[in-house]
Amino acid sequence: MSPIGILGNQRSSAVANERMRIPLGQYIFERIVSSGTRTIFGVPGDFNLSLLEHIYNPEVALKGIKWIGTCNELNAAYAADGYSRYTNKIGCLITTLGVGELSALNGIAGAFAEDVKILHIVGVAPSQFYEGSAQSSHNVHHLVPAVFDSNIHAPNHRVYRDMVDKRVSCSSLFLDDISSACDQIDTVISDIYRYSKPGYIFIPADFTDKLVDARNLEKRPAILLRDVVSGFCINDHKCQELAEYILESMYSSSRPAIIADILCDRYDLTSSLRELVNKTHVWNFASSMGKSILDENNLGFRGVYNGSESQDQVLKDFQTCDFLLHVGVVKNEMNTGHYSYKFSNHSNIVELHPSYVNFIDADTGKNRYVTGQYFFKVLDMMTQMIDPTKLHLGYQESIPSRTQEYCGPPHSSVTHSYLQTHFPKFLSSGDVFVVDTGSFQFGVRDYRFPSDLKYISQSFYLSIGMALPCALGVGLGMQDYPSNHIISSALVQRNYQPRLILCEGDGAAQMTIQELTSFLRYKVPIDLFIWNNGGYTVERAIKGPNRPYNDIMAWEWTELLRVFGDPKLENSVSQKVSSADQMSELLKTFRSSDKRSKLVRLVEVMLGVMDFPEQLKAMAIACRH
Amino acid sequence: MSPIGILGNQRSSAVANERMRIPLGQYIFERIVSSGTRTIFGVPGDFNLSLLEHIYNPEVALKGIKWIGTCNELNAAYAADGYSRYTNKIGCLITTLGVGELSALNGIAGAFAEDVKILHIVGVAPSQFYEGSAQSSHNVHHLVPAVFDSNIHAPNHRVYRDMVDKRVSCSSLFLDDISSACDQIDTVISDIYRYSKPGYIFIPADFTDKLVDARNLEKRPAILLRDVVSGFCINDHKCQELAEYILESMYSSSRPAIIADILCDRYDLTSSLRELVNKTHVWNFASSMGKSILDENNLGFRGVYNGSESQDQVLKDFQTCDFLLHVGVVKNEMNTGHYSYKFSNHSNIVELHPSYVNFIDADTGKNRYVTGQYFFKVLDMMTQMIDPTKLHLGYQESIPSRTQEYCGPPHSSVTHSYLQTHFPKFLSSGDVFVVDTGSFQFGVRDYRFPSDLKYISQSFYLSIGMALPCALGVGLGMQDYPSNHIISSALVQRNYQPRLILCEGDGAAQMTIQELTSFLRYKVPIDLFIWNNGGYTVERAIKGPNRPYNDIMAWEWTELLRVFGDPKLENSVSQKVSSADQMSELLKTFRSSDKRSKLVRLVEVMLGVMDFPEQLKAMAIACRH
Repeated sequence: MSPIGILGNQRSSAVANERMRIPLGQYIFERIVSSGTRTIFGVPGDFNLSLLEHIYNPEVALKGIKWIGTCNELNAAYAADGYSRYTNKIGCLITTLGVGELSALNGIAGAFAEDVKILHIVGVAPSQFYEGSAQSSHNVHHLVPAVFDSNIHAPNHRVYRDMVDKRVSCSSLFLDDISSACDQIDTVISDIYRYSKPGYIFIPADFTDKLVDARNLEKRPAILLRDVVSGFCINDHKCQELAEYILESMYSSSRPAIIADILCDRYDLTSSLRELVNKTHVWNFASSMGKSILDENNLGFRGVYNGSESQDQVLKDFQTCDFLLHVGVVKNEMNTGHYSYKFSNHSNIVELHPSYVNFIDADTGKNRYVTGQYFFKVLDMMTQMIDPTKLHLGYQESIPSRTQEYCGPPHSSVTHSYLQTHFPKFLSSGDVFVVDTGSFQFGVRDYRFPSDLKYISQSFYLSIGMALPCALGVGLGMQDYPSNHIISSALVQRNYQPRLILCEGDGAAQMTIQELTSFLRYKVPIDLFIWNNGGYTVERAIKGPNRPYNDIMAWEWTELLRVFGDPKLENSVSQKVSSADQMSELLKTFRSSDKRSKLVRLVEVMLGVMDFPEQLKAMAIACRH
Repeated sequence: MSPIGILGNQRSSAVANERMRIPLGQYIFERIVSSGTRTIFGVPGDFNLSLLEHIYNPEVALKGIKWIGTCNELNAAYAADGYSRYTNKIGCLITTLGVGELSALNGIAGAFAEDVKILHIVGVAPSQFYEGSAQSSHNVHHLVPAVFDSNIHAPNHRVYRDMVDKRVSCSSLFLDDISSACDQIDTVISDIYRYSKPGYIFIPADFTDKLVDARNLEKRPAILLRDVVSGFCINDHKCQELAEYILESMYSSSRPAIIADILCDRYDLTSSLRELVNKTHVWNFASSMGKSILDENNLGFRGVYNGSESQDQVLKDFQTCDFLLHVGVVKNEMNTGHYSYKFSNHSNIVELHPSYVNFIDADTGKNRYVTGQYFFKVLDMMTQMIDPTKLHLGYQESIPSRTQEYCGPPHSSVTHSYLQTHFPKFLSSGDVFVVDTGSFQFGVRDYRFPSDLKYISQSFYLSIGMALPCALGVGLGMQDYPSNHIISSALVQRNYQPRLILCEGDGAAQMTIQELTSFLRYKVPIDLFIWNNGGYTVERAIKGPNRPYNDIMAWEWTELLRVFGDPKLENSVSQKVSSADQMSELLKTFRSSDKRSKLVRLVEVMLGVMDFPEQLKAMAIACRH
């Protein structure tokens, strides 16, 4: 019996057999769609054109795949990153050998550092140039020659793959065997979901038209996160044992707490975790990177715990807890307040991670790792099994930490302290809020977000300029998967049109500004706030407040959209805001539009050169050398 | 006796000793200046601020070093590349760990592929985080964590160095020993000159203020190309033997010829080679990449030889020669007409290369390599020793190939065929002409340049968008080293103010457009021609002429300078040209300004979407897979 028969496909066997041989390029795009990705970013180049042609294959086009050409490849990588952060599918970009792929590399490294699922497909030179051929000594364009005596020594066609392999990718495939290509491609895609990290496929330009046996598409019609991950989590008994053990530990504590961390988001466990919190009413915290995973309006939410860099009340609350379940834990200096987590004595800590469960004794600091992929199943089981009546919620009365309200005289100009008070009110449940690396970002940590707001920020790798193209990817993800991030059914019923909001500084904006054009080109509405503080204030906070190296050129920000594709201002509005009154008025107007605006709205906000949020100080001190 | 004594320094020994201990940051900048670099490009970042501070050390500032902040790091790398291509000194850029350095990587790879001297200094995390320390397990921002289980396994602080080492750099140094730092830094700088390739120095943020023994600066007050290279070319006797042998071979031929290739330029041998040509009147050709090394108006200049992709007359002329001296040879598909060099039977070929001399027998194709660094000395000796009376110049009469003049009806619109006829006339001796990768570039190959025009184009690696920031670096190099490229004394006497001219396509321009602001910021006058053909025509020529992936967004190009820093149009003019008449008028006006204009002049030229030069066809066919 053929696999098609098993799947109940009614097509005749002859048709089926024919269907089974398709060009590799077609296979790749069908596989990408079957993994949940509907938008592909990139830039055409000599060695990927033959691949791109397959996007226009009717069978591929039928599936609604979309090509989004960006202005350059770094922006494509950032956009793919944003697409994945929003959709939790794989963000895909296609570049060409060398010139394209290397331009994108910083975007890939950022995704790698922050566990974002990206597939980077690189069109490389055709196989006629590889080892053993008459042309193998040829130096082809876009490829770096051998280090020494490149007139004599052949180039290494895998040189760029060697650079990224096991450094900024969890899986990288240089296709040189057409017969196993489909299996190998599927493995890369599975790996990306499994490890939530970028993967690479290098495809020789002449391979894209070669016919392959496409039965994998029938045998495995979809490769999606949950399937992949559950495939590695086979020991149900062990999972149950772990879930029970953790629950017992929780029941026996007096003041249990949960910390939501970023891998909850990456492994699509937000709903499950929110359910656990809602069922139990235990105190809960977000890590710095895990912000917006939890409903920040749930009764027990205490704020963002970031070690010694937390708000005072959060610090106090955290240390009164005697059991901590840290879900989706990621340890880095930005996410742990420079490794300053402190637990109360005698507390037990359990870390849930995609590849282990760790039991920490707070007194001794000793770890006991149970390695294995138990993450989502243990969390799911706990959520199902928990008996809230067995919990002791003996918390001391305390007022959950709220955003610090500014109490001085009325603001005449816009300051970070003004923003800290007023910007959170601008955000609505359902919105997607993208924030670039920069001074403003540090204040956002202590916002109290509305329930179903999705917050996206590269808050560990910290590459300035990332957020603008990232937001493009987010916006296109919102088109492909509307309301993907909305958990509360009330919002879905209300038919709320989520807004995409982006905040970034002027220095960051200059890095990647050309991509602004793509919001117009691909009709991605956005509210973009550019903080004009005359340069790199986040660096001024560390060193060189008055140094010219922290200055940038003054631009006419509000003219950009006109120049970048909207000469008649039909699809955009741009405004400059210099006073707090103006800003308050603008936020009110922007927020009041009932339906999501179809416009690209750019607001240039004048800020003081040396004005930055309090929360940046700890980071600034840590960075002074 | 102290080295200072040897150098005749009059300062007292006490002062000298004190002077010998300076901060490493200061040492680096003093060393950079002493290597001929006066401008440094880059972007500030958390881990390089402590280094940048030393630029403002009075002893460094005194030497006239200039910091040029670019909008992003890729542009900094391109600019450093341009600075080196023009000055033949080392182009220097400073970035920060990860986010900065990886963004710059494609620029470095391009420089590597085309033998350009770049020093890339990367500020990395302070040494307190390295192996053996209590904080060595910490994941610091900008650094990618370990591939798997990064909560448990420490990151590799050298991960980015491992990526570039021996792949896109000839020398890379991760500073971890302060006592040998100065020697090691000097080695990297020497290596960059020796191999004419990029080198890296990774410097921990806490190292920059550490005191070092700076006596190297006194012992070796300058590290420059000629000193470095001659240091490796010690066997004068062997050089003389080789020079004589080659000359004998040349004398015994009937129709000798010289091909000037790009490494002549990189190793500063342009004057020497021009002198040899002038003395002998032998026929001479440029390789595709070697274009503008020779005075294209010398009597024997026959045009660009690019294998089977040459103009017909060039092909014929080349094959009548029975001796070929190929000076500074680089073999890659773009520089050899896709490896289609063909010699006449029984001819002898001699290749001069920085690391070998190669004797090729045209009949058998056999190579005989004499390895060793004889390059510049052998060429110099030949130039000095040659006796023109011994040469046989039995060339057949032929008319040297000239730019194809268009003979059709008058052009109404601007076309590549119009440009092929009219653009060369716009160029003056002394100008610097930068051309981006793209359709226009392919036609330039067959221009007949004025004598002292310097042509700069990334014509092998072919990264589109490179030329705009590259031209910024060129322009700043022209400020540091005015008339550096001018060999004819007549021009110097005439006090001609060289113009900087840049041509690039609209698709390429969008890649790196923000850097346009820096021409205004740093007062770098330029004539910039943007070919508006609605996208990636160079790709359309290969595949997908009508595919949306080759489209880009239409911009208001002539508004860019106003937005990017010249709101009142005080320092720039921008014009749009739609017809051939307009273009002719504009070229005339632009050319007639006697003094170099102080303005940034941008011209948007409308071209047909599918119009491209004939010369692109061979490349387009080679790229179809």
